[in-house]
Amino acid sequence: MRAAEIRGGWGLDNLVLAERPDPVAGPGQVLVRVGAVSLNYRDLLTVQGVYNPKQPLPLVPCSDGAGVVEAVGPGVRRVKPGDRVCSVFAQRWLAGAPTRDKIRSTLGGPLDGMLAERVVLSEEGVVRTPEHLSDEEAATLPCAAVTAWNALVTEGRVAAGETVLVQGTGGVSLFALQLAKLLGARVIATSSSDDKLARARELGADEGINYKDVPDWGARAKELTGGEGVDLVVEVGGAGTLQQSLRAVRIGGRVALIGNLAGTSAEVPLTLIFMQRVNVYGILVGDRESFEAMNRAIAAHRLRPVVDRVFPLDDTRAAFEHMAAGRHFGKIVIGL
Amino acid sequence: MRAAEIRGGWGLDNLVLAERPDPVAGPGQVLVRVGAVSLNYRDLLTVQGVYNPKQPLPLVPCSDGAGVVEAVGPGVRRVKPGDRVCSVFAQRWLAGAPTRDKIRSTLGGPLDGMLAERVVLSEEGVVRTPEHLSDEEAATLPCAAVTAWNALVTEGRVAAGETVLVQGTGGVSLFALQLAKLLGARVIATSSSDDKLARARELGADEGINYKDVPDWGARAKELTGGEGVDLVVEVGGAGTLQQSLRAVRIGGRVALIGNLAGTSAEVPLTLIFMQRVNVYGILVGDRESFEAMNRAIAAHRLRPVVDRVFPLDDTRAAFEHMAAGRHFGKIVIGL
Amino acid sequence: MRAAEIRGGWGLDNLVLAERPDPVAGPGQVLVRVGAVSLNYRDLLTVQGVYNPKQPLPLVPCSDGAGVVEAVGPGVRRVKPGDRVCSVFAQRWLAGAPTRDKIRSTLGGPLDGMLAERVVLSEEGVVRTPEHLSDEEAATLPCAAVTAWNALVTEGRVAAGETVLVQGTGGVSLFALQLAKLLGARVIATSSSDDKLARARELGADEGINYKDVPDWGARAKELTGGEGVDLVVEVGGAGTLQQSLRAVRIGGRVALIGNLAGTSAEVPLTLIFMQRVNVYGILVGDRESFEAMNRAIAAHRLRPVVDRVFPLDDTRAAFEHMAAGRHFGKIVIGL
Amino acid sequence: MRAAEIRGGWGLDNLVLAERPDPVAGPGQVLVRVGAVSLNYRDLLTVQGVYNPKQPLPLVPCSDGAGVVEAVGPGVRRVKPGDRVCSVFAQRWLAGAPTRDKIRSTLGGPLDGMLAERVVLSEEGVVRTPEHLSDEEAATLPCAAVTAWNALVTEGRVAAGETVLVQGTGGVSLFALQLAKLLGARVIATSSSDDKLARARELGADEGINYKDVPDWGARAKELTGGEGVDLVVEVGGAGTLQQSLRAVRIGGRVALIGNLAGTSAEVPLTLIFMQRVNVYGILVGDRESFEAMNRAIAAHRLRPVVDRVFPLDDTRAAFEHMAAGRHFGKIVIGL
Repeated sequence: MRAAEIRGGWGLDNLVLAERPDPVAGPGQVLVRVGAVSLNYRDLLTVQGVYNPKQPLPLVPCSDGAGVVEAVGPGVRRVKPGDRVCSVFAQRWLAGAPTRDKIRSTLGGPLDGMLAERVVLSEEGVVRTPEHLSDEEAATLPCAAVTAWNALVTEGRVAAGETVLVQGTGGVSLFALQLAKLLGARVIATSSSDDKLARARELGADEGINYKDVPDWGARAKELTGGEGVDLVVEVGGAGTLQQSLRAVRIGGRVALIGNLAGTSAEVPLTLIFMQRVNVYGILVGDRESFEAMNRAIAAHRLRPVVDRVFPLDDTRAAFEHMAAGRHFGKIVIGL
Repeated sequence: MRAAEIRGGWGLDNLVLAERPDPVAGPGQVLVRVGAVSLNYRDLLTVQGVYNPKQPLPLVPCSDGAGVVEAVGPGVRRVKPGDRVCSVFAQRWLAGAPTRDKIRSTLGGPLDGMLAERVVLSEEGVVRTPEHLSDEEAATLPCAAVTAWNALVTEGRVAAGETVLVQGTGGVSLFALQLAKLLGARVIATSSSDDKLARARELGADEGINYKDVPDWGARAKELTGGEGVDLVVEVGGAGTLQQSLRAVRIGGRVALIGNLAGTSAEVPLTLIFMQRVNVYGILVGDRESFEAMNRAIAAHRLRPVVDRVFPLDDTRAAFEHMAAGRHFGKIVIGL
Repeated sequence: MRAAEIRGGWGLDNLVLAERPDPVAGPGQVLVRVGAVSLNYRDLLTVQGVYNPKQPLPLVPCSDGAGVVEAVGPGVRRVKPGDRVCSVFAQRWLAGAPTRDKIRSTLGGPLDGMLAERVVLSEEGVVRTPEHLSDEEAATLPCAAVTAWNALVTEGRVAAGETVLVQGTGGVSLFALQLAKLLGARVIATSSSDDKLARARELGADEGINYKDVPDWGARAKELTGGEGVDLVVEVGGAGTLQQSLRAVRIGGRVALIGNLAGTSAEVPLTLIFMQRVNVYGILVGDRESFEAMNRAIAAHRLRPVVDRVFPLDDTRAAFEHMAAGRHFGKIVIGL
Repeated sequence: MRAAEIRGGWGLDNLVLAERPDPVAGPGQVLVRVGAVSLNYRDLLTVQGVYNPKQPLPLVPCSDGAGVVEAVGPGVRRVKPGDRVCSVFAQRWLAGAPTRDKIRSTLGGPLDGMLAERVVLSEEGVVRTPEHLSDEEAATLPCAAVTAWNALVTEGRVAAGETVLVQGTGGVSLFALQLAKLLGARVIATSSSDDKLARARELGADEGINYKDVPDWGARAKELTGGEGVDLVVEVGGAGTLQQSLRAVRIGGRVALIGNLAGTSAEVPLTLIFMQRVNVYGILVGDRESFEAMNRAIAAHRLRPVVDRVFPLDDTRAAFEHMAAGRHFGKIVIGL
């Protein structure tokens, strides 16, 4: 079978398709025929050697995939051959609070990832795919959608009638938009593009702010809530946007802080956090139980993830370059 | 101005329309011109002398009303003349945990209630009416809707994708149905009437169970969730239904226990509570902040309460008799 | 090695010591040399065939034990030979919400239990023993102490300054007493014996009520809190006591409902639940993470469990008869 | 009666003792004979014109005081003459979530404060003083102790066995130390002075770190928890310390962010927040109900606040200068 590998060194030039022997499911394991894989920014950083340069090579990249169980090893109880499943981002984070051990079990580094025709995972490390989704759609869920769900539900406890602000139109933000609507919330989306804002509205956004036109978009968001401020910001920009988010949010509000692209540290107006009694909570994807709860919501509402484009396995490099270009709207997928 | 009074003794024969001097708003108080009042079962029990027979008379009944602020006393900050407002069930339960003092401040006993052309309330004891609602519709909110909201949201923390079971088609149950849908939940409704189940489906119920046809409706509800059980039961029947509710609910599920009509005590299978680790929580309407949060959701979704019938003030007795007959679907309202 | 087995039928006469081959740890498993086992009422009911009469035999009874890891199978990461460990009551309930699958993995039925010189468990199904405890003491923790911890902490969220009422002087109740004191709470204990109340006071109880002398002990408990009512009742009596517990508790208070000895159903004054907005939550021991959190508290405070008496393995029958007699104060242990 | 006033301009030179007519309690108000006032850093910043320079003058400073009710106005229910009371920091934040309106009702600006022989407050704006405390001790509670309580309990949900890190030996930090011990937590204290660390140990601290000797004290704190990290940091330093706090905290841990002295913004390593899934929540004192809950704990444990020094009213300036010098250990009080 074929697998993509980072081999010999970091960088896209070292991301190659290799032939590997078909893996075999041991006790408590399942063999999955992968149908599709989705890319996250973390995967790009990994290939580039930015995310964790000490990671031993070769490495199969990508945490997120969906496919069909082909075989199960001895003692497997949770799934059976023929079941359609998605991978769980952190294979040992099944439930409860995160721990070092749990969060060091992520696919696509340190564990080999999903960008292979067949993979073997622990039976504990997969969830059932919602029936109405194709593998291409389901492959988008493990990282981006679970992150959005935990930002909004498990930690954010969004209730109907609250206002949620989402930033940009990347994978997490679009899932946050769609899931917030399922929860009955009002959504304000920001983008640098009026076209993307128009598409965000089609997905359910109630308001859009073009942050190129309105650099002080935090104040604008506050106006859009009658001066009170939004209840929750799904903060994905980090260094570049947290100041504005803290202007947008209401007293007693929440900011879900998600892996920031723009840098590892930021000048933060701490006064706005304590004088407004804001709760800023980091989100690191989430556990398997939250994935399963989200899938129930996705299935009940027949929510469809936004797939920007599907690349064939042979064009894996092009898929990563498409992500690096940053012009996508929704998720980039590789079909196997 | 005219006010309905229970005078001289209990019973519908002692519920009379009386002429009273117009009240005046003192410091921190507001004068409300009442536009409509809704009835709750508690109001009927009060008139009948069943609810709190030690209550001194005369008493103006009914906790729930909506109208317009006509005047405000010195120092009032929260509202101004012309504002449309609803009454708060427990006038001193503004926020936080319930206490004896807070829950002894209910309108319609011990405090004079809303069934009068004009009433004076503390400025703290009113909330703004959602704009899209008439007074007849808004008058249904203070008790039944706030009860449903707290059962589902504040205490129940229902998330999208969960399944909620509502019993019958009374005021609380229909609000629970409508609000659960706003929250993204799936709803199973029960009734003794296929006609009412059909109407419940029109309001959004996903499934209906006629409990006359299916006496073991708890087991049926469990089947409808793939054998897992429902996440939350809004239990309004009490003695007659709690056993079935405990069969319907999933392991780790919740039962919101709301004022039961059928008796003050019941034979309860305690084993089902601890062996299934179920949480059974009483709901006693709720605080003003939960009312305001609910109104944001109602306004955002332009939810319309189900009004069974509007009676004129002169037909107050007929309105109470209509409630006693128990054939209504939704809320009974008196227009003033 | 020797193991106690229920063999051929239910009843103490069928509880025998058998010779079994030494078990071997497979992949992901650990071999534990058991040092001590504690008895729970559930174990007695199991032997009597009352708890789950459909359970296949033979069965090794008892969920709770402590010992030393002698060997580990391939791939084990969490423990190593020489580690002192306790068993986890439900072997697959590691964290998160309970599910059918999780709670059907309990030791001592359906799975073989701890009353054997050597047992093999999943590496996930053990926790480290607090260093200051002997095996006899540590063996008391898995069921009774974890139940008390979850009643008070995970679900009960007891804070310093709150008042907790514990009933009687069985294993759960004494742990609830001791743990509530660690949390800074005030404790009211009930018992039918002044001697036992005196011993409860030595363990930290602030007040004692002899319920034989004061049958309306709920009212007495309310008086002891200045008329407000206690914040939390750890309810272990069930049918016989829940009415009084609902009189003792404050408005907005909590009742943790734990496996009741006195019957499977009870006449419950539902009005007291919803008119006082009480939260009645079932407790079914708890997950492994709660066990580990509790052990941190037990270790930090060097809390010592109350051991009533230690029997040798040869006197297993006498140990069960001692439990059936019901005169113990604290936990009954079998040393191996 | 005499009152301290900031009059004519900002700065200590403009803080003068003035003679004012005795105030009178109106409807719903209470007249309090102030026995003692405590200083917070906010009060110093207010006098200096740094905190809110747009505040109209004259202003009576200081939010925190304790005394005796001398008289009550019409309709007062909560207290009576002779009751000993403390002031509530935000007079309209009685319960529930913070709002703009609630947090704009703080004493010592915008409302006149407690540094006067007699003050009139809303009956809602006082709480009962724990009996075992003198006015000098009780005056320390409204701001610093309530802040610590909410950091630890309402938001922090500290349980026995957890580890809490407190910074320095100011008012909030010492209360956090003392209250964390009541809750059964282990406490690590930091200071630049070994003498102060020794005194912190006398108050119950389990470990001390001199951050002058150990600049990378975050790593040291992590070592002291076996490499896992502390469960909760009570962060009072802000810009200067948040980086170290984020190194000290465990994965999934909490940082309570309290008014920072060292600047209004800081370079924050956001990666440490989301990669460790840390919750950073601002604390802004808290509501009246949390004050009352804390007082129950303080009374039950007869906790005594740490009073650094008591100044007479005539030495008010010296008291403020003592605070500005920053060498105090515990709270600075002015006795009236």
